[in-house]
Amino acid sequence: MRNFENLMNPKDLIRKKRDGGKFSSEEINSFIDGVTDGMWADYQTSALLMAMFLRGLDTDEQNSLTSAMLYSGEILDFSEIDAPKADKHSTGGVGDKTSLIIAPLLAACGVAVPMISGRGLGHTGGTLDKLESIAGYNVNLSTGKFKQIIMKCGFAMTGQTAKIAPADKKIYALRDATATVSCIPLIVASIMSKKLAEGLDALVLDVKTGSGAFIQKIEDSKKLAEALCRTGNACGVRTEAIISDMNQPLGKYVGNALEVYECIEILSGEVKPEAEPTRELSLELSARILVSTGIAENIERARSIASAKLQSGEAMEKFRKNIELQGGNPEICDKPEILLDKNLFEVEIKAGKSGFVSKIDTLAIGEAVSAIGGGRTKAEDLIDHAVGYACEAKIGDEIRAGETIGILFCRNDNQPDSISEKLQNAYRIGDEKPKQFELIREIIS
Amino acid sequence: MRNFENLMNPKDLIRKKRDGGKFSSEEINSFIDGVTDGMWADYQTSALLMAMFLRGLDTDEQNSLTSAMLYSGEILDFSEIDAPKADKHSTGGVGDKTSLIIAPLLAACGVAVPMISGRGLGHTGGTLDKLESIAGYNVNLSTGKFKQIIMKCGFAMTGQTAKIAPADKKIYALRDATATVSCIPLIVASIMSKKLAEGLDALVLDVKTGSGAFIQKIEDSKKLAEALCRTGNACGVRTEAIISDMNQPLGKYVGNALEVYECIEILSGEVKPEAEPTRELSLELSARILVSTGIAENIERARSIASAKLQSGEAMEKFRKNIELQGGNPEICDKPEILLDKNLFEVEIKAGKSGFVSKIDTLAIGEAVSAIGGGRTKAEDLIDHAVGYACEAKIGDEIRAGETIGILFCRNDNQPDSISEKLQNAYRIGDEKPKQFELIREIIS
Repeated sequence: MRNFENLMNPKDLIRKKRDGGKFSSEEINSFIDGVTDGMWADYQTSALLMAMFLRGLDTDEQNSLTSAMLYSGEILDFSEIDAPKADKHSTGGVGDKTSLIIAPLLAACGVAVPMISGRGLGHTGGTLDKLESIAGYNVNLSTGKFKQIIMKCGFAMTGQTAKIAPADKKIYALRDATATVSCIPLIVASIMSKKLAEGLDALVLDVKTGSGAFIQKIEDSKKLAEALCRTGNACGVRTEAIISDMNQPLGKYVGNALEVYECIEILSGEVKPEAEPTRELSLELSARILVSTGIAENIERARSIASAKLQSGEAMEKFRKNIELQGGNPEICDKPEILLDKNLFEVEIKAGKSGFVSKIDTLAIGEAVSAIGGGRTKAEDLIDHAVGYACEAKIGDEIRAGETIGILFCRNDNQPDSISEKLQNAYRIGDEKPKQFELIREIIS
Repeated sequence: MRNFENLMNPKDLIRKKRDGGKFSSEEINSFIDGVTDGMWADYQTSALLMAMFLRGLDTDEQNSLTSAMLYSGEILDFSEIDAPKADKHSTGGVGDKTSLIIAPLLAACGVAVPMISGRGLGHTGGTLDKLESIAGYNVNLSTGKFKQIIMKCGFAMTGQTAKIAPADKKIYALRDATATVSCIPLIVASIMSKKLAEGLDALVLDVKTGSGAFIQKIEDSKKLAEALCRTGNACGVRTEAIISDMNQPLGKYVGNALEVYECIEILSGEVKPEAEPTRELSLELSARILVSTGIAENIERARSIASAKLQSGEAMEKFRKNIELQGGNPEICDKPEILLDKNLFEVEIKAGKSGFVSKIDTLAIGEAVSAIGGGRTKAEDLIDHAVGYACEAKIGDEIRAGETIGILFCRNDNQPDSISEKLQNAYRIGDEKPKQFELIREIIS
């Protein structure tokens, strides 16, 4: 009589994972099909997600879940483009703006970059929001337009359409509401199902680690990086990962328009010390792609090609062309200062004591920018592209009490004092020069 | 900045249990309040239920959860009734019909029994369905009417109103759909929150164990019984439990009207061997209540009081009076055969070989009766009260090949043959007389 039940029904699958069982790929497909077509109720999906969180998924299950989520939607076909297709994905950080440099830079090196990005949520920013601080820039491209722009200038940047990995969209929203986000197999399936839908040959991942990252501990970041690479390579995309330091904001600026400003400076070939980490990480991530797409024979050669394309202004020309094609104002390439809103109030954050900056609570900085309107707490929140924060002191810098360590650019002068106070408290100042982390902590391939 | 969040928000509570934390009673109250008032989304509740299932709840949490669910609704007040208030609850089995004997029997002994029961689901029957096989019997009493009937005849039997433990109703439906039913702390909170709402002095629990029970292993049944007693006593209700054998149906009949028929026979003082287990278990459960309410000084005395009230017909008179008060046809007390539908088709199940009945798949028998219309697979299914099954052979009986071991009473003669086959296969027949379990396996107090 028990056989009257359909063995693939949600309850049976939930029970299996609850009891520590291993799913076959058919079982995972049945789950993802059920999520996509609505046969699984949200409360059943969330119960299974919690069971997956607590019982885990092995490599086979993780790969099956990624494929099932990938095939729940459209996979882009760029076979008519001869150039190798590649992309970069970052796990998210504060001041993390490398996409805006990497995409035009790779395009300048002969790689096609179909970059599908997201929006900021919580303390982290999102590439789409940054791009929208360029007046007129359209991040809602149709698939046809997306392909056309890539063919014209080597890269395009757009938002995820409803057709790409729709199961991920539902699952991510549930994970966010049920404390099941920080689970490696679920993170891998979510990231990789969207990235693999871009029809790539190569992918480089920037897995952040430290106080401004979703994953604080380096061991956990390594596990995630390894899992991402395993699944990417298993799905036929050459995948490497860099573990980069997120114990302080990347580069100088945090905030949408301010970050674009920093990128334009770098693309113009300016080498300012405070923007150097942004430049260095962008070059390293780009170089990895140049090697894995076979454009450069080794990493040293790749770095020198990428560096030359940045210095020569060719990357900037690609970006200018892209801005024109996506409807934005290309003038920002020559006059980046038009990105800056002169009407903002500047609040200087001062050092409470003298010494060396030994630690920065990077999450607190991301949350401060979000709190003044630069980010979202809910997906539907509107943001203020102009507001942000400039880091005037970084880890290892020697400072004097009362010296400016940061500037908050606010819309109103009545932003709560508590934000300035929290920003000040985000800096730990010690008596000795601290040991500093390398920006690029590890390479996983 | 992190403190902007409300610490009692669903995500934070889910995360805490996910990571193995222990909830305070305030946190559990916040969860149950949120479920009751709809602030918690179903998908959040189910994620927390799965985390509770896998991480567990300790005794404090279990007691807090029970209280919170109890106080999510109305608690009945019977202070105007002088008699001690008591009830019995069973974890559910096949042919388990003792409520219909215990309630009138206890009433005849001077105990007030405010019995709130449920309906059958899956392979188990429910008291309300059994009562509704008595023409006219109303199991939807208002609280006022319920109290009135108890005052008039010592007991009343009704369904759970929406006002009693409303959080349990929502949580139970989610547990059922997400494979989180078989979790001791959640079972305890569900059972006890409803029973404690009856405003009892004493409660006896019949925890079933074996092939027809929700819990098959005796160790697990003991754990549940101990947990139920601990929470009942902690909440101020004298609570005892009997662990009774459910490796075969209780007594002779399975099916709503058929079970009422068996009870009427027992209440008439008839002592048929095939109904003896039903009578014995009813007497033992009733006797436990007579001791814990102080009506009898010890269990031997209690058994003899109960037995005498059964033989004297006083229990039957209470039932007759109750049927009248609840709108049913009291004639069944004198002519129980009117409960039986003469138009049913009888399918005899024959022994496949000679030997001793050594094992019965009791779940399969419950499911067979459900499949022919006697039970439900979904809460909204309608049932056929008349159909059912008569056990003509029990464990330990010696039978010959081809001998009738059971009779299925069906509505149609085209009931699937697979049901008869499954029923036949439900019996294991061995060469030697098997070791038999005692009906009453343990007493937990």
